[in-house]
Amino acid sequence: MGSIDRTPAMVDLSHHINSKSRARRASPLKDIIKFMSYDGMISFAGGLPHPSLFPLESAKFECLTPTAPLSGDRHQHKGQSDDVLSLVLGRGPSPGDIDLTQFLQYGSGAGNRQLIDLAKELTTEVHRPPCEFECLLHPGNTNAWAKVVGLLCEDSDFVIVEEFTYPSAQALWIPLGIKAVPFPADTEGILTSSLRKTLLDWDEKERGAKRPHVLYLVSVGSNPTGITIPTQRRREIYDICVEFDTIIVEDDPYYSLQYPSYHTPKEETFEPKTTKDFLNTLVPTFLSLDFQGRVIRLESFSKTLFPGLRLGYFVANPIFTERLLRATEVETQDSAGLSQGFVLALLNRWGVDGYLTWLQNLQCQYRTRRDWLLDAFNRSFTVLPADKSPVPRDQGLVACVESSQAGGELRPVFSFVDPGAGMFVWCKFYFGGVERFAGIESSGDSHDPEQDFADELWEAWARESVLLTPGSYYHAWQGPEKMTTRARGAEVRTAHFRFSFATPTRDQIDFGVERLAKIVSRFWQQRYRLKWSTCCS
Amino acid sequence: MGSIDRTPAMVDLSHHINSKSRARRASPLKDIIKFMSYDGMISFAGGLPHPSLFPLESAKFECLTPTAPLSGDRHQHKGQSDDVLSLVLGRGPSPGDIDLTQFLQYGSGAGNRQLIDLAKELTTEVHRPPCEFECLLHPGNTNAWAKVVGLLCEDSDFVIVEEFTYPSAQALWIPLGIKAVPFPADTEGILTSSLRKTLLDWDEKERGAKRPHVLYLVSVGSNPTGITIPTQRRREIYDICVEFDTIIVEDDPYYSLQYPSYHTPKEETFEPKTTKDFLNTLVPTFLSLDFQGRVIRLESFSKTLFPGLRLGYFVANPIFTERLLRATEVETQDSAGLSQGFVLALLNRWGVDGYLTWLQNLQCQYRTRRDWLLDAFNRSFTVLPADKSPVPRDQGLVACVESSQAGGELRPVFSFVDPGAGMFVWCKFYFGGVERFAGIESSGDSHDPEQDFADELWEAWARESVLLTPGSYYHAWQGPEKMTTRARGAEVRTAHFRFSFATPTRDQIDFGVERLAKIVSRFWQQRYRLKWSTCCS
Repeated sequence: MGSIDRTPAMVDLSHHINSKSRARRASPLKDIIKFMSYDGMISFAGGLPHPSLFPLESAKFECLTPTAPLSGDRHQHKGQSDDVLSLVLGRGPSPGDIDLTQFLQYGSGAGNRQLIDLAKELTTEVHRPPCEFECLLHPGNTNAWAKVVGLLCEDSDFVIVEEFTYPSAQALWIPLGIKAVPFPADTEGILTSSLRKTLLDWDEKERGAKRPHVLYLVSVGSNPTGITIPTQRRREIYDICVEFDTIIVEDDPYYSLQYPSYHTPKEETFEPKTTKDFLNTLVPTFLSLDFQGRVIRLESFSKTLFPGLRLGYFVANPIFTERLLRATEVETQDSAGLSQGFVLALLNRWGVDGYLTWLQNLQCQYRTRRDWLLDAFNRSFTVLPADKSPVPRDQGLVACVESSQAGGELRPVFSFVDPGAGMFVWCKFYFGGVERFAGIESSGDSHDPEQDFADELWEAWARESVLLTPGSYYHAWQGPEKMTTRARGAEVRTAHFRFSFATPTRDQIDFGVERLAKIVSRFWQQRYRLKWSTCCS
Repeated sequence: MGSIDRTPAMVDLSHHINSKSRARRASPLKDIIKFMSYDGMISFAGGLPHPSLFPLESAKFECLTPTAPLSGDRHQHKGQSDDVLSLVLGRGPSPGDIDLTQFLQYGSGAGNRQLIDLAKELTTEVHRPPCEFECLLHPGNTNAWAKVVGLLCEDSDFVIVEEFTYPSAQALWIPLGIKAVPFPADTEGILTSSLRKTLLDWDEKERGAKRPHVLYLVSVGSNPTGITIPTQRRREIYDICVEFDTIIVEDDPYYSLQYPSYHTPKEETFEPKTTKDFLNTLVPTFLSLDFQGRVIRLESFSKTLFPGLRLGYFVANPIFTERLLRATEVETQDSAGLSQGFVLALLNRWGVDGYLTWLQNLQCQYRTRRDWLLDAFNRSFTVLPADKSPVPRDQGLVACVESSQAGGELRPVFSFVDPGAGMFVWCKFYFGGVERFAGIESSGDSHDPEQDFADELWEAWARESVLLTPGSYYHAWQGPEKMTTRARGAEVRTAHFRFSFATPTRDQIDFGVERLAKIVSRFWQQRYRLKWSTCCS
C-alpha cells in the first residue's frame, strides 16, 4: 500500500452514481426562484402559501447550557437558572435570536443556508477533510442511508458490511434484492486481509453481481458491536477502498461519545477540556483520511441533541451531494423547519466550541453508564482477560461463572469488548458444555441449535424481567439460505446478545445483571435438570 | 354504471402492492417494544439515548386563535392579546399543554398516538369514509407521494394523470422509467369518456406495460389548473376506477380552500359558519365516495398551518397503511417531534371545530386574493364568457384585447376558469394571429413554435419584472419523444401559463397584471415590428 499517493485529489467517482439517480433532473420550478429575488420583481410564479397566514407567531425554547450539570438518573433536568438559556424565534422587525418566518415556509431542499454553513464550520473544525466537500441537511440518518442507497446501489447489488450490522440499514435494502457481503471483525473492526482477499477474488459470474462498491460502516461505537476502529485499521480499510474503488458510507452517530477505557480513573465532576484537547482524544474519521472524496459521512443530531429533531447532514464529495439534493427535492424536501430553527438558534448561542463542550458533557454521562454496566458484570461474574480465560482465542474480556460440578473451575459464559464508544456492549455467549444446549444439539430435532437455545435463554431472562436484544437481529443478510448458525459460517456453540447501557438507571443495571446472572447460573452450572417450561411455570 | 353495488365493502386490493413493498418485513427490534412496558421490566434492549440528556427543557409557542383577524398584506400578524394563545410543552410533572419528552425521543414510525386519533376524528368529521380506514403520519405530501409510488408502482409502469399535472410528483417517478398516461380535462376535470375508452382499449403488448392501476389527482384547486372536480364527475371517475380496478391517490392540500365564485358578494368581515354549514359547502372527496377502500388520501398541514412543519397524514385502507408504515420505519421514521408536538398542542387547544373555523378564516383570505387577481384581469382586459368570446369552443372566461389594426374587434389573449379553490389561475394563451408567433411558425426554423414563442413571452414579462410559471412545467411526462406541442397532441397555436395569487400583495397584483398586459398589447395588437432583442435591449 506504500505506493498510494495521498496528495488530496478529487478523483472522478461519478460512475458510482446509479442509473436512477443519474436520471434525476433539477426541478424546473427552482430555476425561477433566482428571478424572484430581483428588485421590484412581481411574482405570480411559485406556489407558496402566504406567510402572514401561518398561525404561529413565535417560539421560545428553554435550553441547557453546554456545561449544565447533568444527572443521569433523572428524567428531567432541574438546573439552576444559570444553567438554562432562552432562545426566542419571533417574526417581524425584532424577532429575537433568529427570524422564525423563514423556517415556517417551504425551503429549497438543501436546508437553511446558515445551518449548512455551521455544519461546514463544524466539519472543518472536527474532521479537517483533505478534499473539497459539501454539506446537505437530511431528516435523520435513517433517511440519509435510504438516500445513499438510492444514489449508489442498483437492485441486486452486494453491499459490504460488518458481520454484525445495524438491522434498520439492512431492512431498507433487503426488499431491493440487495445482499450483504459480511466481513468478520476482531476488536478493531473488519479484518482487512479478509476484505482485500474477497474483493480481489470477486468472481462476477459466480456471484451473479459485480464487485461490491459500497462499504457501510458504523465505525465508532458500532451498533451492535460497540467496536471503534482505530486509526491504523482505518488507514488499511481506506487503502483497500482506493485499490478497489469502493465508496465508504460512514454512519457515525456516536462519534463524540468516545470514552477512556473502563479502568481509567474518572473525575468526580465534569471538567471540560479545551476544544483542541477534546478533539485530540477522538479517533480520526474516515472523512479526515479521505484524500479522494470517496467517503459519504452521515451526521446526526439524534444522539447529540435529541432524536425527535429528525435532523442531520451529509458531508460528501459535491458530485454526491448534488445528486442527493435532487433526491431530497422530490423525496422529502427540507427537514422540518422548527427543527432547523431550533438547532440554528442553539448552535448560534452555544457557538461551535459550546457545542463541542456539550458533547464532552454527554460523553462523561454515557461513560458513567458504561462503567455501571461493567461494574455490574464484575460483581455478578468473574471477568478475566481473554488470555487468562478458558477461551483465550477470543480477544477482549471473558465473564465466567464457577462450575458447581467440575471442582469449581471457571466456565466461560460470555466474552465482550470494553466499548470505547457508543451505547452498547456486545456479548458472545459460549454454549459449549451447557447441558440444556447439548440436549438440543444432540436431539437432532433442531435446525439451528444455537438459535433455539439463544431464544430459550432470551425468554428465560424476559420472564425474570430482563430484556436483551438477540444477536440474530444483527446478522448480515445473505439471503434466506444463509440464516442458521452453520449456514452463515458462524462459530458453532456461540450466540450473541446486545446490552444497551444508555437508558436504565444504575439500580436497574445492578438488578438486571443480577437477575440475568441467576438464569445464567441455572444453565451454566448444570443444575438444570427439567424442561424449562416445567421448572419455570 | 347503474349496476354497481355501492354497499360499503372492502374488496381485496392487496394485488396492487408492488413486489418490493410486499418484501418489507417489520423490524424485529419493534417486537421487543411491547415487552418493555411490562411492570418491573429492566431493559438493556432498545438503543435509545437517555431523555435526561436532551438539552431542550421546554417549548412555548404563541399562536393565533382560529378567528384572529388576518390581514393578507402584512407579513406579520399584530393581533390583540385576545387573538393570541400560548402553548406550553414542558417536561416533568407539570408539563403544561402536553409533555414534551415523548416528542424528543425516537418514535415508533406511526407517529404520536394522540395525533393519529385526532387525524381519525377529523377524517370522520369531514369525509365520513364509508369503508374502514387508518391514518398514518408522514413528513409532508412530497414524501407521502414518494412512499405511495414505492407502494404501488413497478418500474416502467404507467400512471394516470391529468393532462397538466404537478411537476414534483412526476419528477419523483420519471427516473424510475414510469410514464404518464395523461387525460384531457374540461372545466370539471378529466374527461371520463376518454378515461374509460383508454382503459378499455389498453393493449398491453402495444404499450409495453400492463394497464395502469394508479390514478394521481389533485382534485380540488388542482395545481396547476385550479380545477375542482364536482360531485357527479367524481362519481363517474370513481366508477371507472371500480370497473378497471384502479387505485385513486387523492393529493388534496387545497381541500379547505374552496371559494364561492368570483361574482358572489363578499362579507365585509370574516363570519365563521357552523362546522356543519362549512362542511356542506365543500365538495365530497373521493375518500367519502370510497365504498371499496381504493382511495389513498394524502393530507397535509402545509397549506392549512405552515409548510415548514413537514407534517401530514395518509388516510387509506389498512392494508395500504400497514405497508406504508413498514416503509416509514426504514425510510424516514417518525415525522419531526417538534412539529408533532406543536400540532397536537394546537389542535387540542383549538379543538376540531376550532381547526375547521381556522380553515374558514384562511379560505376567506385566499378568496380575497383570488378576487384581486380576477379584478386586475377585468381592469386590464375585456373578459367575456366563452360563448360570447372569439373562442367559444373553450369553456370558462376569455380575456381579450382590442385590436389596433382590425377595426378594434376583440382578439382573444387567454382563457381561464374562475378557480373555485386553491391558489392558481391557469391561463391558455392564443397565439393565432400574433405576428411574431406567425413569423416563428412560418420560418420553419423552430422545432416547437408554440414553446419558443411562449419562452419569448415569458422573458419579455420577466424583463418587465413580472414572473409567471410556464405551462410547460406541468406537461405530463410521456417520454422524450413527446415533448413538443404537436408530439403531445396539444392544441396548436396555444400555450399555458400559471398565475399564483397566494403571495403577491394587492398592489403587486394590480401592477403585475398591468405590466403583463402592456407586453401582451405589444404582441397581440401587432405593433410588434422589431426582433425582441433589439426593441427591449
